[in-house]
Amino acid sequence: MRDVYQDQLTVLADALADMCQQTAVAMEHATHALLHGDLQLAEQVIADDARIDELRVAAEEKAFGLLVLQAPVATDLRVVISAIHGAGDIERMGDLALHVAQAARRRHPQLVLPDEVAPYFTEMGKIAVALAQKAAEVIRSRDVERAATLVADDDAMDDLHRHLFSVLMAPRWAHGVGPAVDITLLGRFYERYADHAVSVASHVVYVVTGRMPASLPV
Amino acid sequence: MRDVYQDQLTVLADALADMCQQTAVAMEHATHALLHGDLQLAEQVIADDARIDELRVAAEEKAFGLLVLQAPVATDLRVVISAIHGAGDIERMGDLALHVAQAARRRHPQLVLPDEVAPYFTEMGKIAVALAQKAAEVIRSRDVERAATLVADDDAMDDLHRHLFSVLMAPRWAHGVGPAVDITLLGRFYERYADHAVSVASHVVYVVTGRMPASLPV
Repeated sequence: MRDVYQDQLTVLADALADMCQQTAVAMEHATHALLHGDLQLAEQVIADDARIDELRVAAEEKAFGLLVLQAPVATDLRVVISAIHGAGDIERMGDLALHVAQAARRRHPQLVLPDEVAPYFTEMGKIAVALAQKAAEVIRSRDVERAATLVADDDAMDDLHRHLFSVLMAPRWAHGVGPAVDITLLGRFYERYADHAVSVASHVVYVVTGRMPASLPV
Repeated sequence: MRDVYQDQLTVLADALADMCQQTAVAMEHATHALLHGDLQLAEQVIADDARIDELRVAAEEKAFGLLVLQAPVATDLRVVISAIHGAGDIERMGDLALHVAQAARRRHPQLVLPDEVAPYFTEMGKIAVALAQKAAEVIRSRDVERAATLVADDDAMDDLHRHLFSVLMAPRWAHGVGPAVDITLLGRFYERYADHAVSVASHVVYVVTGRMPASLPV
């Protein structure tokens, strides 16, 4: 019985990790669409988000099934509840990639980003994708040390986000308010995506150690 | 045994509803601080957010205790899991009120909002507070019809949010990029606060009906 249960927990973790990798792909494609005005790729991200939402429902149903059939306690219960939290975070990461793709589509055939801010989004996109991939690894490996590395990546994201605002606010900003509003929201989407990836990893740390890491991003 | 259990579920629901009412107060105060440059009130909202975070931890612990001791199934399990989701949404509402208060503090003694956008935030603040209060009621009453009314309020919030952007983007906008960036983020905080309140009510609907309402805001 317990082996079947452990197998089911592994299936649940794999489902979450796969979902996380899909949000990494979504953000990679959304960023490419944003930087290059690739409408087709933006449409694909937007269409594929429904699949991520379905995976979240499926993951929750797996977790429910485990609670009903196995009535886990202690660490096993923490695993299941953390999976439910994680599924919510990962679905939200998909939504944020969707929002980036929607911004790319909304301004097409114009590019959303003036040349001087594009490199920030290239970099924020890379960090976001790496964070989602690392979160997927951490879900599979339960490697607490690996989980801690996500916090450094999230700090790098926050730094980029702050610098981005200083570019928008500088007297030499020549693109007016409209692009600044778009860029403000886009910057927020990447920052929140990173926060949710850190939250996913933090829940794994909680499962392993019984404690949430000291500070979660808000 | 079952009566004790039902009592514990009521205690959990009351804890969530109280937490929700505290986020209503936080948003009411944060909005006042924003509109009137009230630094002391902003500081109070910022300090009080730790209390909302503690209430979330306490609510999750109550939910955990119920899962371990009672191993609920069917509707009772849905109640507990929805409470865990709800606690997450409500904590986030507190964070968003905190962000509004931080914006008010950051620009003090300047006001963040030029006169022509202040009325939008007066109105968004009212809707946000009403949504949190209604969500608290719905948690206590499990009134599905009342829950449905939150969606209309959220639509009103979305309309205001869209109009706000049209003010920022209009050629007559005379306040430059800096205030537009602040206002863009603030508008997003109110909109997301409303989304989380709707999510709380939607989880109650799920408990009562076994189905999530058709569309949740993303």
